[in-house]
Order: sequence, then C-alpha cells, then structure tokens
Amino acid sequence: MIPFAEHKIDALLVSAPANVRYLCGFTGSNGLLLVTPDSQTLFTDPRYTIQASEECRARVKAVKTISKGYLDVAAMELVRKKRLKRVGFEAGRVIFDSYQRLKQALPLAASLKPIAPVIDKLRMIKSDAEIARIRRSVLANSEAFAATVPSMRPAISENDIAAELEFAMRRLGAEKPAFETIVASGARTALPHAQPTHQKLAVNELLLIDMGTCLNGYMSDMTRMLFLGNPNSRVRKIYNAVLEAQMAGIAAVRAGVKALEVDRRARQVLRSNGLGKEFVHSTGHGLGLEIHESPRIGKNEATTLEAGMVITIEPGAYIRDFGGVRIEDTVLVTKSGCEVLTPTPKELVLL
Amino acid sequence: MIPFAEHKIDALLVSAPANVRYLCGFTGSNGLLLVTPDSQTLFTDPRYTIQASEECRARVKAVKTISKGYLDVAAMELVRKKRLKRVGFEAGRVIFDSYQRLKQALPLAASLKPIAPVIDKLRMIKSDAEIARIRRSVLANSEAFAATVPSMRPAISENDIAAELEFAMRRLGAEKPAFETIVASGARTALPHAQPTHQKLAVNELLLIDMGTCLNGYMSDMTRMLFLGNPNSRVRKIYNAVLEAQMAGIAAVRAGVKALEVDRRARQVLRSNGLGKEFVHSTGHGLGLEIHESPRIGKNEATTLEAGMVITIEPGAYIRDFGGVRIEDTVLVTKSGCEVLTPTPKELVLL
Repeated sequence: MIPFAEHKIDALLVSAPANVRYLCGFTGSNGLLLVTPDSQTLFTDPRYTIQASEECRARVKAVKTISKGYLDVAAMELVRKKRLKRVGFEAGRVIFDSYQRLKQALPLAASLKPIAPVIDKLRMIKSDAEIARIRRSVLANSEAFAATVPSMRPAISENDIAAELEFAMRRLGAEKPAFETIVASGARTALPHAQPTHQKLAVNELLLIDMGTCLNGYMSDMTRMLFLGNPNSRVRKIYNAVLEAQMAGIAAVRAGVKALEVDRRARQVLRSNGLGKEFVHSTGHGLGLEIHESPRIGKNEATTLEAGMVITIEPGAYIRDFGGVRIEDTVLVTKSGCEVLTPTPKELVLL
Repeated sequence: MIPFAEHKIDALLVSAPANVRYLCGFTGSNGLLLVTPDSQTLFTDPRYTIQASEECRARVKAVKTISKGYLDVAAMELVRKKRLKRVGFEAGRVIFDSYQRLKQALPLAASLKPIAPVIDKLRMIKSDAEIARIRRSVLANSEAFAATVPSMRPAISENDIAAELEFAMRRLGAEKPAFETIVASGARTALPHAQPTHQKLAVNELLLIDMGTCLNGYMSDMTRMLFLGNPNSRVRKIYNAVLEAQMAGIAAVRAGVKALEVDRRARQVLRSNGLGKEFVHSTGHGLGLEIHESPRIGKNEATTLEAGMVITIEPGAYIRDFGGVRIEDTVLVTKSGCEVLTPTPKELVLL
C-alpha cells in the first residue's frame, strides 16, 4: 500500500501516533515504526512492552529507555543491520531535533529522505471497518447531545454543560472527547474556538455546542445551535443563512468533486447573505483516527473527493459583540453524493 | 528572561502552544510567537482574532488563512521588516516541514538557528502564581478521587469509573483531564499506561487509578491503588515495597540534589525488594502547563533540582499476568526538602 517505489525509498519511518496505530494497531503514546515492503518493526519503550505485544501486528522491539532519542537510534541500528539504503521519514510529523538525531545515527551507506504525508493520504479513504467505527462514534455523539439538552436551562454554566456532555459520551463507551468540547453562550459564540467558562446561560441568548466523541479510536464532530427564548429576526436571519450554506455544502459533496468546490458553494451562500467576511474558517475537514485529517475542505484545497472519505461540513458566521452561528455534520462521501452520518435535527433548538 | 545573547540570537520563534501561552497568554491551538528582547508578536489565524486580542499581552498579528505555512511566512516577513539577523527556533518543537518553510521564506541577510529548549527551562521554576494554580489543580484532582471512591464496587466497569472521575473533575471547574485517565483492574494493572476498558471490577483484585486534572491550564497527577477484598501477602508485599520506594524518593527531594539521585533512591528500594526489573519507567517528571515537563526524574537526568520546581514521584512495579502497583504524588521542591501537594492518603484503599 505504501508507494515505496514511487518515492524511491527502501523503508519508511513512521512517527505520527495515528499513523503508527493505523499501520500496526499500537495505541501507545511513544512508538516509532520502521516499515519496509515486507516487514514492520515497532520500537517503543518498556512502559508499553506488554501492551504492544498484545495489540500489535508488527514485530515489537521494546527498547530500554523512554528517551525518544533512543527510539531513533534503535531504528537506525536496524537500518544498518538490514542494509537499507534509502530511508524515508514523515516530513510533516518529525520534530527537527529527532531529524538531527536520525541523521547522526544514520549508517554511512544510507540516506534520509523527507516524504510527503503518504500514510495520511492512505487514511483519507476509510475501510468499511473504519466507517462502521465512525458511525458508532457519530451516533454516540448525537446521543450524548440529546441526553444533555434537557439540562440546558438558564443558570447552568457553560462548564457544567460541557461536563454533562462529556460524561454522557463516556457513559456511551467513549474513551474521551475528540477535542475540547466547545460550549459558548451569548456574545461568546462569536469565538469560533471558545473554551467553556463559568458564564451561566441567560434568556434570549444563543448557545453554540461543538462536540466530538472519540470511540474505539475514531472521531466524530458536530455543531448545533440552541436559543433560550425567542430569537429575534437578526438571529433567525443569520441562522437561516448558515443553514442554507451548510445544506449547499452538503449538496455539493460527491466523489469526483474538488474539496475547494464544496467550500466555494457554502461560501457563496454566505456571501450572498452579506456574511462572506464573517465566515473566517474553512468549510470542513476530514476525520478518522484524528479529529483533523486530510482533506481540508477549504478555498485552496485541490484534492478531489473520493468515495469512502469522511468529512465535516461546518460553515459559520461570527459577529463580534453579537454572536456567532455554526452548523456542522459529519458526512460520508459516496459515488453519487454523500450520506449525512449525523442524525441530529438541524433546526435551531428553542429552549 | 530569554538568554538572547547567550544563544547569539536577535529573535526567537516560539512554536510550542504551552510556550506561547507561558510567554503571552494566548491559549489557542494555532499560534506562532516572534520574540525579540523588546517585543512579542503573535501570529495566529482568523478563528482566533477576537480571542487573541482578549487574552494576549503580545501584539497580535491575525493572519489571513489557517494554513500553518502561512504563519511561518508571515513571521519571516516581520523578520525582514525588522531587519533581524539571527533567528532562533525551538529545535525540539518545530516540525521538519515547518523548518523547511521557514528556511525558504528567510530573508537573505538572516540565518536560522536551532535552539535548545530555553522556554521549557524557564518554565521548570514555577512562579508563586503558577504554584497557586497547580495547588488548586492538585486539590481538585484529589477531591474528584475522593468523591468517586464510593462508586467503586464490583460490577462497575473501568470505563464507568473513568467517566465518574472525569465528570467530578469538570464539576470542580477543570477544563479537561490532564491526560487519558488510567483505570486498570486485575492483571491489567501490569500495563503502566492501561486504557480503561469495559472490564468490570471483581473481588480480590487490584485497582490502579492514575488521574490528573487540567484546571486553569495547570496540571496535576496522582496514582492510587485500591483492592476489592482482602489482599494476599504477595500483593501487600509489593504494595509496601512500592510505597517505601515512593517515600524514599520524596525524602530525597531537595533543592541542590540531582534528579538522577532521587530516581536512584527510589529504584534502590525496589531493587532491594527484588523488584528492580519490574520498575520499567522513571521515577517522575515535572509538570505545569504540560503534563510532562522538564526535569525528568530518571536515571540519566543530571538536572539539579531547584526550589519552585513541581515534580511527580511515582515508582511502580509491574508483573505480567499478576498485576502492578504504582503510587504517585505531585510535590513542590523547596530549599529544605519538598512539600507533598497531594493530600490524598497513601494506604492501599480496601473496598
């Protein structure tokens, strides 16, 4: 699967934890995987000796210290022993220091080559087993949301809502939230990445909830808007514009379409509603073992969508001192369009 | 505070989110800080424009796209404008790709220099305000533990315990757990970094809980052991040996002592109890804005402890197919010794 010949390498050093897990099943935090066309060797530290032997398809080399430098050196020793010549490394994942250590430990006859994100590229197209896991993660996420909505009442704080949402996720089997749950109320909804505070919900305010679940290693991502009371016409107008943009984005998703085209369609709707400048981020992103994966659904992303990709569609509009609206689903790209995996209704929830 | 002259640099590019936060207060996930002896400029993306202006002591440069490459390029433009010559970067924090982009965008008259972790070094010694925050984090962590112990009964799963612990943390004001809470029962306690499973507690089994709280950005870390029933003599023996090792480690902590000496004292106790090989990790680590900071309390760590450092002391012993024991406190290094910040008793909790 890894295009060794195309990249003119005999082996690839895989550093990113999600890529290591994808290839050999190891879920620990400290692992380095040396992959050749016919072998995989995992280097890890003694904290993970037992775990690695249980989880791993790869031959496990447990090394003697947890110093990360030692993993690099051990991998280079194997390069020497196997007489590998051209060793690729993940240029977008390796820390400069680690690169220096690799260079130093490299056998004289071998060379190091920075490689584009080939594993990340493989990971863009999900297998059926991966899609099944993402579905479960998405459903748990929506269930956690539904279970928590009844507690969203005036005088409960953003923090308490986040606590309830994450507790519900865990009770549904999640390992953790996919990212720091965003609960923002009132004018704080204008912060796209707001951290929950002790601020309490008040009437006639917007409430934005952006939440994701990590279940069996796989992520989900959803944003929904609520309102305590009766929204005025400005709130309704912005909400409807963002919803229309989100639907337009979803309608544009199909295998064969470029990611930037999906972004363009969503953005166009907001622009025609006078909210072009208020949409300060891209329309979405891939997800899977990580919450942000390729492809990005953004202005300059030329990647062509393919069946089996799982992406978010999440346009938003943010107005300082007023508030913001974002609506987000997780969707599966198919040959003829897409399947919206998120089952939660998208109407503005009135509390 | 940053030793520009010593490192022969005119400016330092700070990439690590915790270091950016430490220097300028920005808590977002995408920031690059250019520091000179008389200025700080933060580069971030439009998702964080409002947040950065609220949080930051630094002059904020919001840039126009979220592509990380763009932050690098924008920083190099400022280097050109300010006619900075020698620009340091954090060699232990910068991704190889980002280094390549910086090199490409670097003005002809300037040079890039990999710099040792100088900010991480500053962060080792905590200010009074930081110590106060860590204290609150440690207390919330212990309170969350105490609140959850009553629910630890046969037939509750490791996952459910983790969910309860993390919910309690959040209710006490935490943003999130400091790391993935470890709840391991029975033979799974032999995995130093066990992930909680659906396995249910059973009688006559060890239960290991390693938990940390992230409160106001600051971390805490504690491990406690429980037993459902009446532990046999082998369990008691191992428990007592680890406890003795942990107390010996704590007794060795004092400003002026080398970190490796603390590790040696704890390790010596386990060795003399026949558990030397079963202690597969180091004795502890610094913590603060990150859960693992310098100094490491390990075999080869020559760093001398100083008053104001906050470290963990957490020896353990792990026996495959039997189980493991670890006991961990967060302690503050003082001139005359140390203050154990963790208030939770250390007896084996019998349930």
